[in-house]
Amino acid sequence: MADARSGDALASGEEMHSFAQALYPICRSLTGDGVRKTLGLIKQILPELVIREVPTGTVAFDWTVPDEWNIRTAYIEDPGGRRIVDFAHHNLHVVGYSTPVDVTIDLEELQQHLHSLPDKPDVIPYVTSYYKRDWGFCLPHRLRETLAAGQYKVVIDADLKPGSLTYGELLIPGKSNDEVLFSTYVCHPSMANNELSGPVIATYLAKWITKIDRNYTYRFVFVPETIGTVVYLSNFLDHLKKNVRAGFVLTCCGDEGKFSFMPSRTGQTYADKVARRVLAQLAPDFIEYSFLQRGSDERQYCSPLVDLPVASVMRSKYHEYPEYHTSADDLTFVTPKGLRTTLDLYSKLIDTLEGNRVLHAVVAGEPQLGKRGLYPNIGGQVDQKSVSAILDLLAFADGTNDVVDIANATGHELSTLDALSDTLIAHGLLTTNVSHD
Amino acid sequence: MADARSGDALASGEEMHSFAQALYPICRSLTGDGVRKTLGLIKQILPELVIREVPTGTVAFDWTVPDEWNIRTAYIEDPGGRRIVDFAHHNLHVVGYSTPVDVTIDLEELQQHLHSLPDKPDVIPYVTSYYKRDWGFCLPHRLRETLAAGQYKVVIDADLKPGSLTYGELLIPGKSNDEVLFSTYVCHPSMANNELSGPVIATYLAKWITKIDRNYTYRFVFVPETIGTVVYLSNFLDHLKKNVRAGFVLTCCGDEGKFSFMPSRTGQTYADKVARRVLAQLAPDFIEYSFLQRGSDERQYCSPLVDLPVASVMRSKYHEYPEYHTSADDLTFVTPKGLRTTLDLYSKLIDTLEGNRVLHAVVAGEPQLGKRGLYPNIGGQVDQKSVSAILDLLAFADGTNDVVDIANATGHELSTLDALSDTLIAHGLLTTNVSHD
Amino acid sequence: MADARSGDALASGEEMHSFAQALYPICRSLTGDGVRKTLGLIKQILPELVIREVPTGTVAFDWTVPDEWNIRTAYIEDPGGRRIVDFAHHNLHVVGYSTPVDVTIDLEELQQHLHSLPDKPDVIPYVTSYYKRDWGFCLPHRLRETLAAGQYKVVIDADLKPGSLTYGELLIPGKSNDEVLFSTYVCHPSMANNELSGPVIATYLAKWITKIDRNYTYRFVFVPETIGTVVYLSNFLDHLKKNVRAGFVLTCCGDEGKFSFMPSRTGQTYADKVARRVLAQLAPDFIEYSFLQRGSDERQYCSPLVDLPVASVMRSKYHEYPEYHTSADDLTFVTPKGLRTTLDLYSKLIDTLEGNRVLHAVVAGEPQLGKRGLYPNIGGQVDQKSVSAILDLLAFADGTNDVVDIANATGHELSTLDALSDTLIAHGLLTTNVSHD
Repeated sequence: MADARSGDALASGEEMHSFAQALYPICRSLTGDGVRKTLGLIKQILPELVIREVPTGTVAFDWTVPDEWNIRTAYIEDPGGRRIVDFAHHNLHVVGYSTPVDVTIDLEELQQHLHSLPDKPDVIPYVTSYYKRDWGFCLPHRLRETLAAGQYKVVIDADLKPGSLTYGELLIPGKSNDEVLFSTYVCHPSMANNELSGPVIATYLAKWITKIDRNYTYRFVFVPETIGTVVYLSNFLDHLKKNVRAGFVLTCCGDEGKFSFMPSRTGQTYADKVARRVLAQLAPDFIEYSFLQRGSDERQYCSPLVDLPVASVMRSKYHEYPEYHTSADDLTFVTPKGLRTTLDLYSKLIDTLEGNRVLHAVVAGEPQLGKRGLYPNIGGQVDQKSVSAILDLLAFADGTNDVVDIANATGHELSTLDALSDTLIAHGLLTTNVSHD
Repeated sequence: MADARSGDALASGEEMHSFAQALYPICRSLTGDGVRKTLGLIKQILPELVIREVPTGTVAFDWTVPDEWNIRTAYIEDPGGRRIVDFAHHNLHVVGYSTPVDVTIDLEELQQHLHSLPDKPDVIPYVTSYYKRDWGFCLPHRLRETLAAGQYKVVIDADLKPGSLTYGELLIPGKSNDEVLFSTYVCHPSMANNELSGPVIATYLAKWITKIDRNYTYRFVFVPETIGTVVYLSNFLDHLKKNVRAGFVLTCCGDEGKFSFMPSRTGQTYADKVARRVLAQLAPDFIEYSFLQRGSDERQYCSPLVDLPVASVMRSKYHEYPEYHTSADDLTFVTPKGLRTTLDLYSKLIDTLEGNRVLHAVVAGEPQLGKRGLYPNIGGQVDQKSVSAILDLLAFADGTNDVVDIANATGHELSTLDALSDTLIAHGLLTTNVSHD
Repeated sequence: MADARSGDALASGEEMHSFAQALYPICRSLTGDGVRKTLGLIKQILPELVIREVPTGTVAFDWTVPDEWNIRTAYIEDPGGRRIVDFAHHNLHVVGYSTPVDVTIDLEELQQHLHSLPDKPDVIPYVTSYYKRDWGFCLPHRLRETLAAGQYKVVIDADLKPGSLTYGELLIPGKSNDEVLFSTYVCHPSMANNELSGPVIATYLAKWITKIDRNYTYRFVFVPETIGTVVYLSNFLDHLKKNVRAGFVLTCCGDEGKFSFMPSRTGQTYADKVARRVLAQLAPDFIEYSFLQRGSDERQYCSPLVDLPVASVMRSKYHEYPEYHTSADDLTFVTPKGLRTTLDLYSKLIDTLEGNRVLHAVVAGEPQLGKRGLYPNIGGQVDQKSVSAILDLLAFADGTNDVVDIANATGHELSTLDALSDTLIAHGLLTTNVSHD
């Protein structure tokens, strides 16, 4: 288990940021070649990634897989023939899932299809229309205000027709069938924190996990948000309910903001307990949100009939930073440092999960630490803080508490308690069994 | 159930205040014709009211129904022959359950039988001596201080002899045998908040309930306080313990003070849960008292061997307003507005009870609201607040939470959640069963 | 039970302080004649005390009884032949369990065996080396700083060889086999609060208990700390786990500081509940420490495989007062007043344990207190506060609450509730059974 407790093999922030740069220009949506291309690049780093296609029309719980959308070109030409909005410049310019169009219309009619943000006049907003057939363009409000009356040529060269929904899945087997789930989404066009940070962290976390000695089996899911998650759950719900001990939605995790915690619906799952403790220790100024403020795939994972132990550790939470869902959510907002510090925290969370176990003292009373070289005979020869951690660990090792519980009860650091547990087990003073509750 | 959710049929404050004026002059006590006359007037509004007589000497739990008391005349004449205190002017002038007397005594002896309040010198206090045979007069302290030495003629023309205790009961059947209980008392002479507000609200709440579509059976009890409640409980305890899901003592509920909440003994019954939520929403500045400050019939309903789920929603609580138990507690303190706003709150409490149900989501994951016209396809077309309420309702509809629990968990309004529950049940997205816990 | 509720028979502070003075000069350690002499003096006050010897080498849980240590003489002579440190002056001068020595060494070598406190330069520190063979002297830092270079003669005339560990046990039988345990230690040399206050309070508390009418059986244990407790537990663990309902470690309980409370490991045992209530009432400014700050034999009694309901009520807690573990912890720090107020509190704690019982109301509804002379017929004739206590007691006497729970719920005083319980039981209004949870 030593590997699991070292950050040595973690990817650098720069490597992750480079990968985000490679993914950034791709026009992703719920379906289509952008998703395939994205998963293809991830598979170059995680060769075991399995990419699956689910045909249009497939029913999943209450949903049906929609037509596949692919777009080639899209632009608006002003009355003077100037291409004033061009998909080639930024893929946020086109409303996601826009139907094809090739018309010349006057400004008044065009305005019905334009989206901009008066209070953020310099950015392009992100808009989709997945389930209602429509088309539209997004543009900075400042540009929109310059539009003069006249005839505008509008072209969207796109397909919206039966095809499939694409997702990726990676299973990294461990000694146990018990699983830790990570889920992230691959359905947003060129945005960095609210898209790429999730798959990038997932990719490099998975890569690191393949290299550590692990008890758990790890499942990584790269899906389009909502519909992809519903499709995935509808296929594997029984298995997941049986095996998943803790899960995390990876989203908005690449900037340098404070850590944010979105608990599960009950806030009382194993994922919640472990994440709260790791955050309390490593990022004590983290913000805990209410489940009422949820907004990503915990909506699916925590729904009453699914009810998986899934929480989310983020940096600046969706809806809570001004760049959210605009062209300003770019690769200056997501940084190498932001990515790496998030990866660090998730690696510690995995260390904690791997090292966690219910502990039970073996001898009645306190053991005689002195005869084992664990107690100061005359003050100062043994680290008093360490003695205190040993005695507290033994005092709370009552067969109901796991390492995280004992850290909660005593305030000693998880890594200290984990290492001391190993020592005391080796000395025959503790017994253990893996914890999953 | 639409009727239950409308305040249209509620009596006006003026109508209720007029009824209080009609009841005000009657000299009520634990027993006697004042109680009968009061119940007779209530029966004119609630023809189904059943009036019962329980003979003197009847044993009820630890108590025995006392002799019946009726009074005709009572006065004190001063040494000059002036009638300075006269029951005909205010029935608070005579100590309740006074024995008959017709004597001429000197001032010193008379003083042993006088009651006044030095710190409230202008009001007549309310005093009784139910279980110890005695007689006395109550008067403003300012008047008492003017009494000169000399011989006073004292007359109380009253009967205190075997008869019966009288109470009223109204059962309004619903679809279910599960009952909601309202209990109020009819044993105080001319006082308004701490007497008439209770029976007046009870009368008009019952009248409204007869007109609504209802699931619950409603039981209204008009009894003399303590002894009447004990008599009633001793007759029907098994039935009540089996059927009553929530109950409320109606008292001190006609003034315009803040709402007050007296929880049940445990504070954790269904009545407590629903009342707290309704108050939190409709009267968020309400005062929650401790059960240690109880003082009305919750003393009987919540006693350990009775243990019914009975709480009390009041306005200015007994003991807590200066007019309490004096002639100043009159029909200027109780107002049409005070009565009506209390009736409003109780009608909403009944709406909540009627609409409350345990809810369970039917589909795994979030349902696709869009295809049902419940979700904005492009921002702004559907009320986002309503979408949030739908998603929160579904998220917490896990088969353990009822509407009140979901309101507590999410902060959405009870009426919003109730209406959305109907909608989602109609769309096949929720199932339900009535809640009673 | 009247005796148990009176402080009359309690020893005076002066009597206890005199006994502490008699015990003070004795050189106690884990083993040896100092312990025997101490137990012998206690047995003069408690003739039923049983003194037991456990041979060196006896295995107890994880520990082995060490060799017995006895010391006769010890001193250091400076190069001028002056006896600058002498065991005869203060037994703290010698490190506990020092091996015999008789050498002349230079100052540099001597310094390796000296202990002093630079930040408390005028006191002799308390140092032991129980499980590592060594020798040493303790002295005021100010004296140490005066030592000049040269040859020092060092003599410790002591035995460290097979013998036995000595402890005392007193069982005071009650009507029930349920036990209350008091444990104190007799292994420190001349220190007052952190040694003598414990055995002195234990001695006089036991003496008082022998004189009261008692339900519980009381067990007093006088042992060397840690090893003695482990030895005791290893012999009687099954019996103790079966019978002990509440236990208390008596230590640091003779000064005049605020009361301190050390809860058990869970903080939720019967001992915790009763002690917290008694403290809340009698010493409301008491300090509750965390079990993480434990430091005496609750470390053994509360260890996971022992898990007895043992807490500790102290005055100035070990580690928390500057005199702790130095020669300044003497009989000016421990006072007659400090001893007596502690004895008072423990006697009240025993009163509470003896009087505590689960109560159940007998009649449904409130009983008619008036016919029993317990209720004011006309205001003011009966103590309203007492009526309120009666009604609250009856209201919470639901067959799950004991007197302590009812005091917690209502705020009425334990002695009031206890006395009223007797009255109401006598009136047939309450039933009871002894409480142990």
